[in-house]
Amino acid sequence: MSELEGLSLISFDRGATSARTFRGVNPATGEALEPPYHPAAPADVERACRLADEASLSYGRSAPAARAGLLRGIAEGLEGEGGAIVARAQAETGLPQARLQSELARTCHQLRLFAGVAEDASWVDARIDSADPERKPLPRPDVRSMRVPLGPVAVFGASNFPLAFSVAGGDAASALAAGNPILVKAHAAHPGTSEAVGRIVQAAVRSRGLPEGTFALLFDDGFGVGQELVQHPLVRAVGFTGSRSGGLALLRLAQARTVPIPVYAEMGSVNPVWVLPGALRERAAAIAEGLHASFTLGVGQFCTNPGVVILEAGPAGEALVQPLAERTRATACGVLLNAGIHAGYDRGLERLRRLGGRLLAQGAAPQGDRQQGVMGSATLWQAEAAQVLAEPGLLDEVFGPSTLVVCYRSPEELEGLWLALPGQLTASIHALPEELAAHAPLLERIARRAGRLLFNQFPTGVEVNHAMVHGGPFPATSDGRSTSVGTRAIERFSRLLAFQSFPQQALPPELQDANPRGLWRLVDGAYTRGALPVKP
Amino acid sequence: MSELEGLSLISFDRGATSARTFRGVNPATGEALEPPYHPAAPADVERACRLADEASLSYGRSAPAARAGLLRGIAEGLEGEGGAIVARAQAETGLPQARLQSELARTCHQLRLFAGVAEDASWVDARIDSADPERKPLPRPDVRSMRVPLGPVAVFGASNFPLAFSVAGGDAASALAAGNPILVKAHAAHPGTSEAVGRIVQAAVRSRGLPEGTFALLFDDGFGVGQELVQHPLVRAVGFTGSRSGGLALLRLAQARTVPIPVYAEMGSVNPVWVLPGALRERAAAIAEGLHASFTLGVGQFCTNPGVVILEAGPAGEALVQPLAERTRATACGVLLNAGIHAGYDRGLERLRRLGGRLLAQGAAPQGDRQQGVMGSATLWQAEAAQVLAEPGLLDEVFGPSTLVVCYRSPEELEGLWLALPGQLTASIHALPEELAAHAPLLERIARRAGRLLFNQFPTGVEVNHAMVHGGPFPATSDGRSTSVGTRAIERFSRLLAFQSFPQQALPPELQDANPRGLWRLVDGAYTRGALPVKP
Repeated sequence: MSELEGLSLISFDRGATSARTFRGVNPATGEALEPPYHPAAPADVERACRLADEASLSYGRSAPAARAGLLRGIAEGLEGEGGAIVARAQAETGLPQARLQSELARTCHQLRLFAGVAEDASWVDARIDSADPERKPLPRPDVRSMRVPLGPVAVFGASNFPLAFSVAGGDAASALAAGNPILVKAHAAHPGTSEAVGRIVQAAVRSRGLPEGTFALLFDDGFGVGQELVQHPLVRAVGFTGSRSGGLALLRLAQARTVPIPVYAEMGSVNPVWVLPGALRERAAAIAEGLHASFTLGVGQFCTNPGVVILEAGPAGEALVQPLAERTRATACGVLLNAGIHAGYDRGLERLRRLGGRLLAQGAAPQGDRQQGVMGSATLWQAEAAQVLAEPGLLDEVFGPSTLVVCYRSPEELEGLWLALPGQLTASIHALPEELAAHAPLLERIARRAGRLLFNQFPTGVEVNHAMVHGGPFPATSDGRSTSVGTRAIERFSRLLAFQSFPQQALPPELQDANPRGLWRLVDGAYTRGALPVKP
Repeated sequence: MSELEGLSLISFDRGATSARTFRGVNPATGEALEPPYHPAAPADVERACRLADEASLSYGRSAPAARAGLLRGIAEGLEGEGGAIVARAQAETGLPQARLQSELARTCHQLRLFAGVAEDASWVDARIDSADPERKPLPRPDVRSMRVPLGPVAVFGASNFPLAFSVAGGDAASALAAGNPILVKAHAAHPGTSEAVGRIVQAAVRSRGLPEGTFALLFDDGFGVGQELVQHPLVRAVGFTGSRSGGLALLRLAQARTVPIPVYAEMGSVNPVWVLPGALRERAAAIAEGLHASFTLGVGQFCTNPGVVILEAGPAGEALVQPLAERTRATACGVLLNAGIHAGYDRGLERLRRLGGRLLAQGAAPQGDRQQGVMGSATLWQAEAAQVLAEPGLLDEVFGPSTLVVCYRSPEELEGLWLALPGQLTASIHALPEELAAHAPLLERIARRAGRLLFNQFPTGVEVNHAMVHGGPFPATSDGRSTSVGTRAIERFSRLLAFQSFPQQALPPELQDANPRGLWRLVDGAYTRGALPVKP
């Protein structure tokens, strides 16, 4: 990794220096890290947007192999400098080395998965309905259509995934795979990691002869640069992972534009876990172990953290709550990502307390020299369903290593609880198979409120594959129709475009008779990977 | 057709009567038509929404064959009462019998096309990534996902397509095919047609044993019922075809909800037609003939009406403009859809005049007893590109039989014109094939601004097939990613849902190993229509 410079990356160049600077801070020690970072100036943002718009035409029609090569090149670059990147990310985020190494591997897997999808190119959903000059009363025209890129996409780095949801993370990979230039707003909490990754992306774009505006990285420790990006007329879509307040602010800006644009904001949720009586009877200790591991994983800083556990009130529940409380008490104190997350966690716990949550157990408190850093202790809370139904604020997300056990005393309370929960990324059901069947109608209602349903598993750990859905109804996301993890994410940075009666040579290759790219296409209503028959 | 009653259709029943009523009006004569129509009361809307929500669970998991049967049953019902429906629609809209007969045929074709898509069910994009218990460091879970319905969809009938974009039109067909109950707000200008069609839908739902809340039809001649629908917490999406002001009003209401919902508003555009010099030289008279037919078709009342024609200034253009003016002068006066459309057309012409457009030619004026009706004369206008660039209001849609020829004097003016045009449903290029190639960069810019590009054809006449895209960037639509015509419209009334590690019997049939519905599915990254291999 070459020395960090603290400047935005625009074109194959650096952004301007600025009077004001900010630094990454090691959350474990409070130490400010070198170098100082220069927030991008409005002129930097303007230049980056103009270059991205210029790049969008040529990058948008780049061959699938070129996009795939770019994504694989980034993955190789990340692996080549993996040690240094992980070390810097460790210093900036307090995340453990092993976690960051696996996040790096996940990021590279993700880039290669999208490279494969870009290369195969069937995702463009090419369709051809051929002409019929003999049709009466009017001849039938030739109509062909496919998905095309949207244009420059603003991508916001997330604090809790400095690699997998940041500069070369999921939104970046899917937007690039779909043929869109990206303008990344680095998260202010890990600027060095962002710069190191950004240089790899920049070099990969350059070495493949792709247009200079394909990628830009912009720094800022305030809201200005992000707002300018979302409001810029040349920006065509937004990808964001973070807090609800941040996501909603961007959504409102995008809606208020002269030309509104799609915002894909993943804003987190409480990911309810419902443990049914049979499962409780047979596996209470194992469920307690799994739940504890899930809600304290990464010091609880996952969007899929299980923040609410739903149980029938009574002695059976104690078989789960007791070992869960013991494990919580035995949990070491963890370094939180940054001071903002720390303050938010404290506010969340204070809210639980104020709204009547009962603290059942607390993990180890920070000790000795670790008090310099921003640390979080695990906490386990309990409330009655009746309390929660009277005060739904108890169901708001607390970002950190905390979970709330909610006990219901009747089927009505149980149903009421599910109805009180807003849209969720996930909902987990722990049950015996026969219990699942017995609760089918309620399960259908639950399915309406979530993007992913889990059976006898825990929500943390989001596989990156073709089938994954990491989305869910508002307010888990701002657009519950799609996903930010998994290969379907490529579709959200695209729109449909049709060509009517165009000559072959003026059509994109995806729509030409010969099918030079060998795509799956829907031709006159049937899927085929072949060429169109030559007309006599 | 049984006698019309003037009441909303809710459940298998009628809505309440109300003190205030309104009537359809024959635009050709000004005659008020029987019966009086009762606007739905807030209690009617509430009841319809509750029933739709209840229906959404069971209708949402209905078998593909059941949905296909419903859509085909509606088509049969429409054909069975086609004569009476066409006669009523003629009286309410002034559209000619032949046009309405072909619109009825198109509506039935559309219903059957979506029936086929629903029946095949591959549109759900089922995906399976199978488990790997041996994966290190963690076992890989089984993840399966598919598109699922959104829930109750509010559909707004359009004034200009009393059949194909109304009660059993495109939005209704695609929303029902995707498994969503529909709540149709009838357009106030053709209530009798709406009731007649609504009864057929209601009977088809009932005779197939589908839940009573699958369909409701609500009348109103104001904005109240539409606003209540879009704001109702149980409504999950909106489909609309109409004016920009109407579409934007609904969009703003939907964005301001506690839980925002998708709005698919098709708001029209001016559908620019660019005639290049070579085409002008070789085919000016034929292009004039085609253009005239297109901009006066249906008295100009199509969203795809060509409202702007772009030509190089100079004598070559005269070869097109002269015959176009002659044909315009020879155009008979036509009955407009209703008094609102008539007033809007007059306002649009007044705006063209005020902003400096030059009236080149005008068709026949209303005469004799036809003065009782609302009539529109064809008009042909001209402006210089420089005028248009100084006053882009000249590019706003005039809904009616009117088109504006804009003459450019330099490549810069030409490019400026295209940049001044906002998002369009269509853009048509008349050119020799070699001219297309020579203008490739500008064509790419044009493609960014449109949903459908046509070569040497005219934009009116939207084929209903698999490849059609009837959409386009804002403000042509409120959501430029999708289409309101063609089978891809089924996707917009759906979202993604994943199941992780679920037992077979608790999965929807689409995701079960055995693939009982024989869908195309993406299984571990490869498309197959088969079952999953049985595990040893």
